[in-house]
Amino acid sequence: MKLLSTENGFILSHKNRVIFTHSTESPMLFLGVGESNFDMYRGNFDITDYVTERLAMRQVDVETFESDEAVKAVITFKFDGEPTLKMTVSQTLEGRLKADFEAIDKKYNRFWLRVDANQQERVFGCGEQLTYLNLRGKNFPLWSSEPGVGRNKQTEVTFMADVNDKAGGDYYTTNYPQPTFVSDEKYFCHLETTAYADFDFSNEEFHELQAWDIPQYLLLDKEESYEALMENITGVFGRQPVLPDWVHDGVILGIQGGTDITYDKIAKARQHGVEVSGVWCQDWQGKKVTSFGKRLQWDWQWNSEMYPELDTKIHELKADGVRFLGYINPYVLEDYPLYKIAQEKGYLATKQDGSKYVVDFGEFYCGVVDFTNPEACEWYKSVIKTNMIDFGLDGWMGDFGEYLPTDCTLSNGVDAEIEHNKWPYRWAKIQHEAIEEAGKTDDILFFMRAGGTGIQGYCHTLWGGDQLVDWCLDDGLASVIPAALSSGLMGNGIHHSDIGGYTTLHGKKRSKELFQRWVEMNAFTPIMRGHEGNRPDDNHQYDTDEETLIHLAKFSRIFKHLKPYIKQAVILNSKKGMPVQRPLFMHYEDDAQTFEIKYQYLLGRDILVAPVYNKGELLKRVYLPNDTWVHAFTGETYTGGWVDVEAPIGQPAVFYRAESEQRELFDVIRSL
Amino acid sequence: MKLLSTENGFILSHKNRVIFTHSTESPMLFLGVGESNFDMYRGNFDITDYVTERLAMRQVDVETFESDEAVKAVITFKFDGEPTLKMTVSQTLEGRLKADFEAIDKKYNRFWLRVDANQQERVFGCGEQLTYLNLRGKNFPLWSSEPGVGRNKQTEVTFMADVNDKAGGDYYTTNYPQPTFVSDEKYFCHLETTAYADFDFSNEEFHELQAWDIPQYLLLDKEESYEALMENITGVFGRQPVLPDWVHDGVILGIQGGTDITYDKIAKARQHGVEVSGVWCQDWQGKKVTSFGKRLQWDWQWNSEMYPELDTKIHELKADGVRFLGYINPYVLEDYPLYKIAQEKGYLATKQDGSKYVVDFGEFYCGVVDFTNPEACEWYKSVIKTNMIDFGLDGWMGDFGEYLPTDCTLSNGVDAEIEHNKWPYRWAKIQHEAIEEAGKTDDILFFMRAGGTGIQGYCHTLWGGDQLVDWCLDDGLASVIPAALSSGLMGNGIHHSDIGGYTTLHGKKRSKELFQRWVEMNAFTPIMRGHEGNRPDDNHQYDTDEETLIHLAKFSRIFKHLKPYIKQAVILNSKKGMPVQRPLFMHYEDDAQTFEIKYQYLLGRDILVAPVYNKGELLKRVYLPNDTWVHAFTGETYTGGWVDVEAPIGQPAVFYRAESEQRELFDVIRSL
Repeated sequence: MKLLSTENGFILSHKNRVIFTHSTESPMLFLGVGESNFDMYRGNFDITDYVTERLAMRQVDVETFESDEAVKAVITFKFDGEPTLKMTVSQTLEGRLKADFEAIDKKYNRFWLRVDANQQERVFGCGEQLTYLNLRGKNFPLWSSEPGVGRNKQTEVTFMADVNDKAGGDYYTTNYPQPTFVSDEKYFCHLETTAYADFDFSNEEFHELQAWDIPQYLLLDKEESYEALMENITGVFGRQPVLPDWVHDGVILGIQGGTDITYDKIAKARQHGVEVSGVWCQDWQGKKVTSFGKRLQWDWQWNSEMYPELDTKIHELKADGVRFLGYINPYVLEDYPLYKIAQEKGYLATKQDGSKYVVDFGEFYCGVVDFTNPEACEWYKSVIKTNMIDFGLDGWMGDFGEYLPTDCTLSNGVDAEIEHNKWPYRWAKIQHEAIEEAGKTDDILFFMRAGGTGIQGYCHTLWGGDQLVDWCLDDGLASVIPAALSSGLMGNGIHHSDIGGYTTLHGKKRSKELFQRWVEMNAFTPIMRGHEGNRPDDNHQYDTDEETLIHLAKFSRIFKHLKPYIKQAVILNSKKGMPVQRPLFMHYEDDAQTFEIKYQYLLGRDILVAPVYNKGELLKRVYLPNDTWVHAFTGETYTGGWVDVEAPIGQPAVFYRAESEQRELFDVIRSL
Repeated sequence: MKLLSTENGFILSHKNRVIFTHSTESPMLFLGVGESNFDMYRGNFDITDYVTERLAMRQVDVETFESDEAVKAVITFKFDGEPTLKMTVSQTLEGRLKADFEAIDKKYNRFWLRVDANQQERVFGCGEQLTYLNLRGKNFPLWSSEPGVGRNKQTEVTFMADVNDKAGGDYYTTNYPQPTFVSDEKYFCHLETTAYADFDFSNEEFHELQAWDIPQYLLLDKEESYEALMENITGVFGRQPVLPDWVHDGVILGIQGGTDITYDKIAKARQHGVEVSGVWCQDWQGKKVTSFGKRLQWDWQWNSEMYPELDTKIHELKADGVRFLGYINPYVLEDYPLYKIAQEKGYLATKQDGSKYVVDFGEFYCGVVDFTNPEACEWYKSVIKTNMIDFGLDGWMGDFGEYLPTDCTLSNGVDAEIEHNKWPYRWAKIQHEAIEEAGKTDDILFFMRAGGTGIQGYCHTLWGGDQLVDWCLDDGLASVIPAALSSGLMGNGIHHSDIGGYTTLHGKKRSKELFQRWVEMNAFTPIMRGHEGNRPDDNHQYDTDEETLIHLAKFSRIFKHLKPYIKQAVILNSKKGMPVQRPLFMHYEDDAQTFEIKYQYLLGRDILVAPVYNKGELLKRVYLPNDTWVHAFTGETYTGGWVDVEAPIGQPAVFYRAESEQRELFDVIRSL
């Protein structure tokens, strides 16, 4: 860190990169006062802000302290001669740049900070972004919510979702926002706040980071390589544990309907050669039917009517090599047993006057377990341990986390508007700890869609949320690729998605072709897992016909065959934070083209995957960075550049490096 | 005007109404700095503002001066101890409150002023508003533009217009914005600026008036009655002249296609008993065909190929009681004769470097005549006088005025962003003066859709712009009612609309029923005029079948029969500014219900019109304020309240006051 005084300001740099440039003409900090309005409808938010004041903090007092170890600078921003905010900049023991903020004048609740940008700079991250990989040129509101149906105001499905359910979303809506970005100049920058934030990358000379609160601090570091940068980032936010070994052994079938159906489906899949590692039965605790489709009965305990004898069969299945996974989320269904306990003990968020607060989840209402109450957390952990782990579940979807209403009252006294973005983190932590306390971290898989700062150390894997069963770029098959890459850059190196997508609405139904293309992609991700979707009967399923079963069998074999390779990548992720799915630029940074490719990825170091994401596409145009690449299904060899390869169903555009140490493993793919 | 000093501010009132309340806690003025971005596509604007600073002007120095006539107060707003803006408040000779603004610190280009509001207050106006009559609860961006196709983000037609042409619009988009509002507390408030403005009526305690420039002044006055208020308002903005007498004699048929077709159509209409006062042939100067439909050849002179012998026939027609009307707008088609002259003489707006600037009007390009150049204005007047008036035209549509691009360069050196909203005024003035200089103010009719402050004295009548040929509330038949009422409250007392609407796009086609309902409404407005629409062949026309002709004949007779009554209202409008179409509350202010009725109106003092604006509606629910009302078509008598009346085609829900002095005239309606 270096602080250079200038005529009327200063320049602060870190590892030879200018971070802040401040002058009276061009101040780095603005403070203000705003009145927010949050209107939530089933996890979709209409958010407005009336900013009554926004003041440029032009005046500064700068003091520097030098000790043996490092320089420290205390910068006091002033307005109208009065001190407003103190920023203490120092280097942490790990060598990161840290700027702590302390509000002096407490009236300000809006904060805008400018970080120096270069005109050509590209930035990535901000949590899990489904539309953009390079975020430059736009602003990104950061607020955990439903990601939206369609997510593009130019598409009819988005329009219909908006009009019918206020649910269309937009390019930035995401389950997992994080106020952190990564630059192609190989630095990351994080603003520590859980308030509503908005990172604006549309200016040429600066990135403007907005928060609706005074953040605790900004943390930034720069490295020489992306590997080192990922290790650094995950040193801050935590690292995911390795996956249970059994996850690599095949597909986790998404099944619903009861014990018999589950047994029948496993048998049929195996008869067709499908490698089955588990079954995921989200309705293990029963279900409700609404106009949206089949919904679950949110009361987290075995439903013995729906799944008779599961208490014993779950062990039989496990002995037979098939793990049984369930489902949970942080809400409890009104008037059901768990709700009643929580209500009685005061474990639920309330209205301001302490009265009951239930949230509309679409034709049913639930209480929100108050994770700011340590007793409520312990209780919820015990529910997970007793009802789920002890019962024999080897995993679950840890759904939701985005619906904390901003007007509820919480046990810790913090404004729910500030707690909202922290909720996914709290939710992940509870699940992780329940598993850890049960001594099962190595054996239980749980996956979340919601996320936020710090979730990296607690959420074992993300899944991409609820895609449309469709080809649309912003909410279909394609969208999970930037989702995996952006969240990977935040340190969530293990990502996957529902095979075939989830949302069947507004005339969209899952086609066989879409299902098969999704299978072909997910075989080359760390986890292969299916989902029947919200309206299973309208969707093509893995067992709808023989051909689909046989196709799935082939790709489940490939997935299992890649176990040693994927496992190595998963271990690296757990140790050094290198994501399993990586953007091309991570290993080919000298090639400017690689930074603009958001619908291809590297699986580990040596495999390049270019999923077909357009309907009817049989010839796939692929960008290969400079290397020698072998087509995994044809054996043909390619060097760099754009190439057109045939990609009929069953032959996805997947390549591996000729120089790979695992080449022999890869060579077998085409015979599977 | 009264200025009361308070502990840390002041209260300024006028005629016992508090106008400004200022204190350090709750300042009345905010100044700021913003960077606007205007993206225009064919008259539709995507406008964003990046407000870098917004400062509350808490500190004031107040000086008062008392003379024999009046009190004057000079309030100097200060920030950080430095004066920023001087507001001089005084009473004008006419007794209005005037607050002049003078920027002291010139860096501010954003201005927000708070006018005291009462919680229950209703406000109206802001130019021609097509969606809302009472504007309370929302903000209204004020920028002259295309009004939009659909104008409601919840409708599919708006979505399609947005996606295809960026043309969907929204509740506030209008050809005619004006930074003036009228309150139900019987005051008006005007901000003198032509910059982009936004009046925000969503706060309970104040109306916040925003402008992207320091306005010249605020003008406000209060009266005891709406009549007095209208006289006051039009005393400021000007009053429309009376309509030419011939306008009251029947319908002006919208016809295209040449001399023979015009003659044939007149003959056919007359044979069916239609009272024809004129024909409006917008293609008198030729036409172009684009994908949008039939467009006009924008080179303002008689096209003798299209209209052979019109130079003589125009006089024949006039002698026969049929006036001939044409069309003009403020743009000239690239490379056509008028363009070449204007280009040569330097009469066109240019790019910053002085080079050619043409505007895209949808598959054709035009130069913008620079109305800030007095010579260009004189030249354009001479075009109107020579090519139109001297040629024999008795009127025209003075179309457009909203397309001044913000990045063009103008002769007077003023930023086009500031000139944009003034353009309709400039355009009206040129047309009015051309007519006046020709001594024809009493005999020529021209009508505009674009508007702005001061247009009242120059534009002889507004028409409601381009409605969809549809029933949708925000852009169909219904929308022209609030349009007439809001613009009437600004002093534009003569309004009308295209019978049947104009825009045929996205699958909408004009039905017979819609056409007939529109006829039934327009017979009870000051002008009856048709339009074939942009795609005439897709639309039902007045002569599509016998029944339609006979129906039109009846209502043209009624319209003509009402001539003495309408004429009286038109004269009152020209003398005292009382609009011809009036909101119900103007005469029934004690009835709170009347303020919320936006789809009914009074025609003059004694006729109440409740147009059927829903498809298939045969029973019309009407609100009648407390009075004795006679149904114009059944003779049945009603007193106040909600009533359901039968309203088959041919029998619109029109009522007149039993006590009217013109009752005998009205009694005849049902026999026509």
